[in-house]
Amino acid sequence: MRAEVITVGSELLLGETVDTHSAYLSRECFSLGVEVVFHTSVGDDQARLMEVIEQAHRRSQLVFLCGGLGPTLDDLTKETLSDFLGIPLVRDPAVVTALEEWFQGRSRNIPSNNYKQAHVFEDGVVFHNAHGTAPGLAVSKDGVTYVLLPGPPRELIPMFEQQVRPYILDTFASGQALVSEALSFFGIGESLLEETCKDLIEANDNPIIATYAKEAGVTLRLTARAATESAARELIAPIKTEVLKRTGDYCYSEREEPLEEVVMRSLIQQGKTVAVAESCTGGMLSHLLTSMKGSSQAFMGGIVSYSAFSKEQVVGVPEEILEQHGTVSSHTAEALAERVREQFATDFVLSVTGVAGPDEVEGKPVGLVFIGLKEASGPVRVYRLQLRGSRRRIQLQAAKQACFILQQCLKKGETTR
Amino acid sequence: MRAEVITVGSELLLGETVDTHSAYLSRECFSLGVEVVFHTSVGDDQARLMEVIEQAHRRSQLVFLCGGLGPTLDDLTKETLSDFLGIPLVRDPAVVTALEEWFQGRSRNIPSNNYKQAHVFEDGVVFHNAHGTAPGLAVSKDGVTYVLLPGPPRELIPMFEQQVRPYILDTFASGQALVSEALSFFGIGESLLEETCKDLIEANDNPIIATYAKEAGVTLRLTARAATESAARELIAPIKTEVLKRTGDYCYSEREEPLEEVVMRSLIQQGKTVAVAESCTGGMLSHLLTSMKGSSQAFMGGIVSYSAFSKEQVVGVPEEILEQHGTVSSHTAEALAERVREQFATDFVLSVTGVAGPDEVEGKPVGLVFIGLKEASGPVRVYRLQLRGSRRRIQLQAAKQACFILQQCLKKGETTR
Repeated sequence: MRAEVITVGSELLLGETVDTHSAYLSRECFSLGVEVVFHTSVGDDQARLMEVIEQAHRRSQLVFLCGGLGPTLDDLTKETLSDFLGIPLVRDPAVVTALEEWFQGRSRNIPSNNYKQAHVFEDGVVFHNAHGTAPGLAVSKDGVTYVLLPGPPRELIPMFEQQVRPYILDTFASGQALVSEALSFFGIGESLLEETCKDLIEANDNPIIATYAKEAGVTLRLTARAATESAARELIAPIKTEVLKRTGDYCYSEREEPLEEVVMRSLIQQGKTVAVAESCTGGMLSHLLTSMKGSSQAFMGGIVSYSAFSKEQVVGVPEEILEQHGTVSSHTAEALAERVREQFATDFVLSVTGVAGPDEVEGKPVGLVFIGLKEASGPVRVYRLQLRGSRRRIQLQAAKQACFILQQCLKKGETTR
Repeated sequence: MRAEVITVGSELLLGETVDTHSAYLSRECFSLGVEVVFHTSVGDDQARLMEVIEQAHRRSQLVFLCGGLGPTLDDLTKETLSDFLGIPLVRDPAVVTALEEWFQGRSRNIPSNNYKQAHVFEDGVVFHNAHGTAPGLAVSKDGVTYVLLPGPPRELIPMFEQQVRPYILDTFASGQALVSEALSFFGIGESLLEETCKDLIEANDNPIIATYAKEAGVTLRLTARAATESAARELIAPIKTEVLKRTGDYCYSEREEPLEEVVMRSLIQQGKTVAVAESCTGGMLSHLLTSMKGSSQAFMGGIVSYSAFSKEQVVGVPEEILEQHGTVSSHTAEALAERVREQFATDFVLSVTGVAGPDEVEGKPVGLVFIGLKEASGPVRVYRLQLRGSRRRIQLQAAKQACFILQQCLKKGETTR
């Protein structure tokens, strides 16, 4: 079944509000086996809204209309659809009561224009709004079902979860299971990943294979349809195995999740701790490692040794190393890791020093980064990178690369002690 | 002139990605005097993309197409538009060179499918992509201009700002000057800011006054139209003065810019240095303060003392303070600032300790945060906050609040020494 989402409101067309409802409803529809094929945003303009509704009526069986259900004059969604379908709006006593209770509960008089919100489609469905005054509505004609939802997310989301999802399941139970499995990659570009799997992508349409570039890393998604969920997973399994056979070294998770969360989970599962010494990443590595709840179990802390002074005085990097090799060098990365290991006494220490840009440092080029990995025992392993892009991108790539290096180490179980 | 934005990509229809480009481009168009009347998202499906392009061709004079310019098989935007307009794609030697340099610069071989990105419209315009491999394109037919932009925000936004905005101004210069001036606020909510300026907002339509809630802080924008730029600025000036008279304490910049950049600029201008001691913000404060180029002039570094062990052993917070008052306390915030000041010898030290959540710590509620500000001489001033929201939001609000406290201090010139 084909569905589409129409969001209504001039604030969307002025760019004052980012439309998150279309993505939310699309995810929900996907999980219900309903395919969303278009998103459209239109302003509070009756003629343009009518144009969009006519077009949706021609091409979809389920149409979500979000917003424009309020009490004010520029709220036109319900009225426009009523005109288009030729289905009158009638006053619903139950909604009137709910409205009056809502305002009484807030010891406020009900503004007369609010009674407009008690108008519902004749023989239509009404969804009670537990968090606002505009009820949701559903109405069908010519094999097309319209679901009207209030604009504010705090009203739309609970209404969808508690009332609309069950309604859609009852109305459109498709008897088909749609299953989607993701693989998360780092260290391989989207085009190289697709190149590597080109024959699989072209040869298969169930599962469909698609790649998505993320700010750092790439996601590959396999989506299959079948009569049952297990049948769909059986279609995915062999292809997934083949993809991993070709690209497994770069795959850090068989789910869609950030690299740093996988690292923290591995550390916690293995009962290991980590501390960091950051220069060019300026705190971003620590920030990534503490973005997940419970990170305090494995992340002990770190030092942002942004200045040469702090590398020497706070961390204790020997002056001669800084003078002979410079702050951006494998020797400094090594010394940072060694000294911070002494201070934090963790199982692992990651150190990062480099040139985030836009200007070079000590004659070293922008994007040159050294990452050190120190384990409880054994020497520091230092990795040299030449990154590209903006300052923020170099910082992010360096921090993510440090996470990837630690994750590879944890994966291989190379941990000493 | 009427414009619309079409975003292309199955990840949008699956709800995996929220479309932020439509809002971004709509804001930009508004500031250029171009009215955006529709947003449409469509998947990587040639027939549906063709349908959307045909419809846009009928009703708009400027059409943005975002995404689907990549090297992969499901990238169809350019090819579909070429079919629709009957304008062939030709290989552009300059783009070929740029592509080869891009991959050489990364010491990688160019995957053969990437050459697809060197195909541009015959007699069309090419926008160089400084942050990726897909160039932007512009082509016109039947009085409709199409602007094709790459999907990743880090590629689209700089391309728009540096090349597409000037192109649109040249191509569609409306003969009217449209001037927009922004004020950046922190510590006041959007609704309170709007309430405070309600009469001004209602009484004025030139300049238009609008508020925009940001992830942290609020922006107020005054936009005026006039025959000349100076005439437009004269319309804005008195209203802006009145807004500042009412809300000046919360205004940290008369431009739209992040708080942390204003702080770093003030420090650099006053020749002062800062270091930080972070607990619950886990590196985010350091990360904010190093996000701007040149921050090494003023930011000396910091310690992320995430564990009690590191507070005591690495920073040197006295054991009895941690035992008597807990790690989340004004005493600990004070001690963190004092000790880090001793280690980094900076003009200022900011310290942050609190409960980011989701679970409470030492019986202290989620969102309780203490921020310490230490100057070269004088005692530590400690501020107590009770923040609300998700873990990430609490971390961000705490880090931004620390920046605001330092900025207020720098603004008042309260600096000692």
